[in-house]
Amino acid sequence: MIEKWTGAYRVGVSVQGVQALVRRTHEARVLRVLREHGALSRGQIATAAGLSRTTLSEITGDLLSRGAVVVVDTDHHRRAGSGRPAELLTLDPSSGQFLGVDIGHTRVRIAVADAAHDIIAAGHAKYGPDLDRGQRVEVAFALIDRVAARTGVSFRALQGVGVGVAGPWPAAPDLAGMFGERFGAPVIVDNNTRFAGLAEAITDGPDVHDVMYVRLSDGIGGGLVVGGRLVAGAGGAAGEFGHVTAQPGGDPCRCGKRGCLETVASIPAVLRSCARRGLALATVQELEAALGRGAPVAAEVLDAATAAVGRVVAVAALVLNPAQIVIGGRLPRSAPAFVRRVEETVAGELCPAGGPRPAIRAARLGDGDGALGAIAALFRQTPLLDGYPEPVR
Amino acid sequence: MIEKWTGAYRVGVSVQGVQALVRRTHEARVLRVLREHGALSRGQIATAAGLSRTTLSEITGDLLSRGAVVVVDTDHHRRAGSGRPAELLTLDPSSGQFLGVDIGHTRVRIAVADAAHDIIAAGHAKYGPDLDRGQRVEVAFALIDRVAARTGVSFRALQGVGVGVAGPWPAAPDLAGMFGERFGAPVIVDNNTRFAGLAEAITDGPDVHDVMYVRLSDGIGGGLVVGGRLVAGAGGAAGEFGHVTAQPGGDPCRCGKRGCLETVASIPAVLRSCARRGLALATVQELEAALGRGAPVAAEVLDAATAAVGRVVAVAALVLNPAQIVIGGRLPRSAPAFVRRVEETVAGELCPAGGPRPAIRAARLGDGDGALGAIAALFRQTPLLDGYPEPVR
Repeated sequence: MIEKWTGAYRVGVSVQGVQALVRRTHEARVLRVLREHGALSRGQIATAAGLSRTTLSEITGDLLSRGAVVVVDTDHHRRAGSGRPAELLTLDPSSGQFLGVDIGHTRVRIAVADAAHDIIAAGHAKYGPDLDRGQRVEVAFALIDRVAARTGVSFRALQGVGVGVAGPWPAAPDLAGMFGERFGAPVIVDNNTRFAGLAEAITDGPDVHDVMYVRLSDGIGGGLVVGGRLVAGAGGAAGEFGHVTAQPGGDPCRCGKRGCLETVASIPAVLRSCARRGLALATVQELEAALGRGAPVAAEVLDAATAAVGRVVAVAALVLNPAQIVIGGRLPRSAPAFVRRVEETVAGELCPAGGPRPAIRAARLGDGDGALGAIAALFRQTPLLDGYPEPVR
Repeated sequence: MIEKWTGAYRVGVSVQGVQALVRRTHEARVLRVLREHGALSRGQIATAAGLSRTTLSEITGDLLSRGAVVVVDTDHHRRAGSGRPAELLTLDPSSGQFLGVDIGHTRVRIAVADAAHDIIAAGHAKYGPDLDRGQRVEVAFALIDRVAARTGVSFRALQGVGVGVAGPWPAAPDLAGMFGERFGAPVIVDNNTRFAGLAEAITDGPDVHDVMYVRLSDGIGGGLVVGGRLVAGAGGAAGEFGHVTAQPGGDPCRCGKRGCLETVASIPAVLRSCARRGLALATVQELEAALGRGAPVAAEVLDAATAAVGRVVAVAALVLNPAQIVIGGRLPRSAPAFVRRVEETVAGELCPAGGPRPAIRAARLGDGDGALGAIAALFRQTPLLDGYPEPVR
């Protein structure tokens, strides 16, 4: 359940200005040294990180006050000579510094990162689709408590909470209030699939410029990187691939329209279509099994779903001309050919002489992508977030 | 034919850095003073612009060497006392400093701006749709010569040429070569509807963040402003609304596909649909007349076209969540209800509870929008172009 999540964030340029960037870079060096070497004295850290004692002292003072680093010992038993014994510092392995939460349609997922940006805890919990937002938040709080108890992670020095929420509507301010009150830390609230898109885009390194990410699970949403920046949209509602009409006059959608892509190509929609054609499947695992044994109904329903996804993705690709299209979420993992079939449809919808095609790939991150993206939004160390709203307290 | 084109460009922040920005701001102040007061001495300009004599001297020296400003007279006949007579400077009213060219499917349009960014000449010429790119450029060159001869505008001090070209393909480098060779100035080549979208977005002032622009004329294309930046796309092909499939299996499109929006809602497509239904119309003016007299076939064909445009625009709006959608080009002007009908379709395609709707409006600029946008791309004084490719020599 613990995922490694390092590296990519440390290459970006922050909007906070050069001074903050230098400070952050120095801090990252100190954290890296501590991660690699364990407990060290200030003198050893300064040497290994290539920093002056004065600079180091400021940084370790801040890390100690944040609870990111702890004093574990003094080295007097190793010293033969005289002089004041030097304290040994180490990363606090139980100090959760960044908390990412992804509140989806039927489950909540969390991830916790330490000061070195490594994921030190994660978990998920299910709920029924009928729970209201307040009830979902209660489930999230209980999950966070359980994960903390299981892993020993504490949130005493939490730097921030990133909360991703499902749905086509801009995130409600009440969520920031609820999490802010509970954790006493700055909160950033955003669409959960946008966070997932951010996390996926970051896996491609610092030179990511034009990426479209679509996530197909219990719901369908997406995230966009355009011109090297994560896109929020004027009302914070960019990326609503799931509510594009895929089947005019089709099934009613929870958004109030009919025939949205989500009524054709989400997990519940695919299971429903199979049931209508006499193939009763209760879960995506059962769908996977049916596809595995070559059940024609399952294959045909999934074919229709991939074609619908491909047509919607193609429109967005013609309008945005991305370099890369990433297909993520649980449903694509149900069939090995899912991404390739989307790609075939997209290829047929782009102009034959229209220049280089976007690369289409499966997502690299698993279902924890939304929570990881929420943490990435707190780190603020990717240029993708330049100009993007900051966490609020 | 001469359009006023002032103001909006002078508020932006340039990417060239603060020094260049200060220099440019000073230059803009000098040019504004000269535009408002006519011929002035250096001392009068310095006073009116609030600049030191040293700073002013640098700026006027540069403007004189560029041919943007000329010495018209000395003021010795006005002076009673002794001392060297002071030269009077004025804007050169015939010095074309920026040339914008929009090479469309059936016509080329040009606009010329002086150093003060006012449009001092403009014109257009038609050609058949069968001309190749080289032949179209020849028509453009001949048009530029005719406009120069008619207006007395010269290109001796040209600062740059912006060339917009139609089509879903990234602009070919040969165009930059042809115009660069002819005019000995830096050239920027881009999609012409993207230039038009840039020009339209600028009319909304400096705080434009998320705009979708669609132009429906002989072809269909568009331009996007996302997060306050003009979008090029990974391959320079962003904004291809015209090649989204609007009618699966429909008419063949020049892009190689079938049923593209351009085969349903461009001027030639609408005229063709009318003809198939027994209403022979040769031009958009004849279409306008038929709509004016209430011809049912014309009304029905246009209704189908607006609905198709609305559906495509809606997909892009769900994905991008723009604040504003601008409908431009010649076809929308053929029917007063065009924009409202597009708006109705878009409204039906967005989620009922999906937050604030984008405002949908008709374009403010006329058919010269592409040439004006090409000039705007040369001015580089709108933040919409931060990070956008610079002109090449």
